[in-house]
Amino acid sequence: MGKLVKNITSIDKDFSKWYTDVVIKAELIDYSAVRGCNILRPYGYAIWENIVNILDKEFKNLGVENVSMPMFIPESLLQKEKDHIKGFAPEVAWVTLGGSEELSEKLCVRPTSEVLFCSHFQKIINSWRDLPKLYNQWCSVVRWEKTSRPFLRSVEFHWQEGHTVHENSQEAKNFTLKILNLYKNFFENILCIPVILGQKTESEKFAGAEFTYTVECMMKDGKALQSATSHYFGNSFAKAFDIKFTDKNNKESFVYQTSWGLSTRVIASVIMTHGDDDGLVLPPDIAPIQVIIIPINLKNKLVLEKSREILDIIKNKLKLRCKIDSSEQTPGWKFANYEMKGVPIRIEIGPRDIENNQCILVRRDNHEKITCRFEDLSENIEKLILNIKRNMYKTALINRDNKIKIFESEKDFENFKGFIKMPFCETLECENNIKQKYAFTTRCIPFENSSISPELPDSTCPICGKKAKNYVYFAKAY
Amino acid sequence: MGKLVKNITSIDKDFSKWYTDVVIKAELIDYSAVRGCNILRPYGYAIWENIVNILDKEFKNLGVENVSMPMFIPESLLQKEKDHIKGFAPEVAWVTLGGSEELSEKLCVRPTSEVLFCSHFQKIINSWRDLPKLYNQWCSVVRWEKTSRPFLRSVEFHWQEGHTVHENSQEAKNFTLKILNLYKNFFENILCIPVILGQKTESEKFAGAEFTYTVECMMKDGKALQSATSHYFGNSFAKAFDIKFTDKNNKESFVYQTSWGLSTRVIASVIMTHGDDDGLVLPPDIAPIQVIIIPINLKNKLVLEKSREILDIIKNKLKLRCKIDSSEQTPGWKFANYEMKGVPIRIEIGPRDIENNQCILVRRDNHEKITCRFEDLSENIEKLILNIKRNMYKTALINRDNKIKIFESEKDFENFKGFIKMPFCETLECENNIKQKYAFTTRCIPFENSSISPELPDSTCPICGKKAKNYVYFAKAY
Repeated sequence: MGKLVKNITSIDKDFSKWYTDVVIKAELIDYSAVRGCNILRPYGYAIWENIVNILDKEFKNLGVENVSMPMFIPESLLQKEKDHIKGFAPEVAWVTLGGSEELSEKLCVRPTSEVLFCSHFQKIINSWRDLPKLYNQWCSVVRWEKTSRPFLRSVEFHWQEGHTVHENSQEAKNFTLKILNLYKNFFENILCIPVILGQKTESEKFAGAEFTYTVECMMKDGKALQSATSHYFGNSFAKAFDIKFTDKNNKESFVYQTSWGLSTRVIASVIMTHGDDDGLVLPPDIAPIQVIIIPINLKNKLVLEKSREILDIIKNKLKLRCKIDSSEQTPGWKFANYEMKGVPIRIEIGPRDIENNQCILVRRDNHEKITCRFEDLSENIEKLILNIKRNMYKTALINRDNKIKIFESEKDFENFKGFIKMPFCETLECENNIKQKYAFTTRCIPFENSSISPELPDSTCPICGKKAKNYVYFAKAY
Repeated sequence: MGKLVKNITSIDKDFSKWYTDVVIKAELIDYSAVRGCNILRPYGYAIWENIVNILDKEFKNLGVENVSMPMFIPESLLQKEKDHIKGFAPEVAWVTLGGSEELSEKLCVRPTSEVLFCSHFQKIINSWRDLPKLYNQWCSVVRWEKTSRPFLRSVEFHWQEGHTVHENSQEAKNFTLKILNLYKNFFENILCIPVILGQKTESEKFAGAEFTYTVECMMKDGKALQSATSHYFGNSFAKAFDIKFTDKNNKESFVYQTSWGLSTRVIASVIMTHGDDDGLVLPPDIAPIQVIIIPINLKNKLVLEKSREILDIIKNKLKLRCKIDSSEQTPGWKFANYEMKGVPIRIEIGPRDIENNQCILVRRDNHEKITCRFEDLSENIEKLILNIKRNMYKTALINRDNKIKIFESEKDFENFKGFIKMPFCETLECENNIKQKYAFTTRCIPFENSSISPELPDSTCPICGKKAKNYVYFAKAY
């Protein structure tokens, strides 16, 4: 194919370089003058916009309302909840000067906004009539990371952070699960990515949370990627921020809270779950271009006319995002370019196709070519989109399941790339032990086969020999 | 009415207090722990979301693509264009610490992103094939203002900033005007606000621009509000950042650029153009709730059933944003509440209305009550929305025109609240003179009756007696 694709490192040769090649050459991201801060280019930002639009509707269906909090947090406010400040203080950026004057109190650029939401909640919540509050904001946050990689870890990144307030613990816990489930459906049905859901161990939970639920995904290189989280706070923040309400019996109580978030990291998840040696493979629902039409002979008026006719059907009848590329580049260059960009369906039309009343549809996910009569186009495209989604999920599921191993011996940690599922004592000592020796960390206590679900294993922890509490997933992680 | 409305200061008594009352009591904004940074509450943020959605579609129709630049700018980068840094350096917030380490170069939190876009453009533009670039970003920016007022002037605010790059000066100038025209249509057709379009004088133009076009609005208190701007840069930034391209004749040239922006300030414009003693009056297209249904007798099942039926028609058939308020508050309290929140249409339904096969529609803009038979509801609501928009614009236009005075004597500056249109020499000396004596600043050189349009006045500047260049609008401004 064209020269573009040749420039991508092969997945098997160097996964990490393949990833960077895809991110840069598909024009998702450019590096900026600031270390660790990336520019989202139009194609990369359009993917994020599609993700935002889909999730935003889902959140609103649950009654969630969007708000906007300031980007700055005064030092004293950040310090109000002790576990929270301990977790975040080492990695924040501090504003100390305004204009030319030194500030009397330094301001951190929000790494997350719990304390801002809490101090607002304290002001606006008085009675049970004010509850629940189901808030979300789309914004960017800053964490002063030493190393950075596009979408995976950066100083500034885009995300949504949901913050909710409830009358009682059960309602808050239910909401934490409701959101986890929303994320699960989004990963499976929209991103075509299989997930493992579970609870974080104590050492991996969010700073200030009582517990953290997580969505864990498996990348093609055998590393896990934590892709979304949902936290239950109990009333620890409520107590630190004095958020009380008068209940129906006229009694004053502290509220119960949750927070939950998903960031541009999911784009890394998409790239490393579906991508191949030709570049990106995008799930149709988030692809900025869902169908690309490539006219084969640009001098042939009939070809261009027919291309526009097809564009019209796909855009206006099927409501899909579709473009014609009638630029002066060769068809081969165009094929490679839109494959690299992960466009789900390519339509090729040449003069001979028109004579035969047909065009060629090419799937990005498996490179299959389909000859399609014009009158069947709408129906075929609609079916194809569904088939592509189904096939992408299935392929990812097979890849993922091949990368899950039930623990047999400690040697697994040396050899295996993927999830290792092991009966575990859940002590920090064993956790640190495994982390230091093998760089494997606990990913989650899965809902299947754990105390959360019925089947608790009657087994011992193979590291310390004490009683195992649950099966736990371990992996090297991004 | 209810106690809510009584708490709003009357417009005539204290305009400034009225404004703050509306902003706080309609729950648009809450103050945060950080001076000058406001929280956009759900109702306020929903107004902004509606504005964003409408404008974003318009921008995309012009071929504009969204991107995301980092929020930080290294000091050395900000200093590259001299006029630009001079304009912005005094009012930026500086990050000097990352984690616990002092940064080797301090970073400013973007007050605007010209330099970030320019350093990206320098990397990605090589040939005429790469042009034009039509970029925009929705984000928040920070300006270290000493004083702040909700929506009008704050340390952090939301906006969009467009940045475009063109092959030649004419194309760039045309685009500057195209955007100005887009803003004009948005103000007139969506926000129902009349505007004066023109060019800023030298002292009022954007730091680094060759010229600045502006959208000027007149508030009910006689103060002007600059509500959107569109800047032509020529190639001054291109030269500072070395942004060159090879043209079709294989010659290397500098590019020509524009930038343009509109912020949450437009919400202040809406409030102070349309609001009244009962609170907000929202233009239907940006109202978070366009129709509120208030059932009069909550115990009557028929009333609730009919309310839901109407909700269904308005939401699903008319595609309008509609809600029922069936809370335990009194109807009077609800009337006052939704009037304060500026909801364009209120529907009242009681048991007697149902017997008579009718409901009552109440307009927010002029408080008119209309009895409406159920079978005419859809048609009436659709007509009403159009009438409300027309009437809001007309009323605002009359108010605005009453606040324009053709200059007669210098005493006008002492007495008149509004725009004073005066033949002007356009010297900085006269401009400063008027500013210091009367706090009136030049708002714009209007397109009507100026060198830009055909009728140049043959007149002298009444301040210095020298030849006038153009009619210029002066006003006290926010």
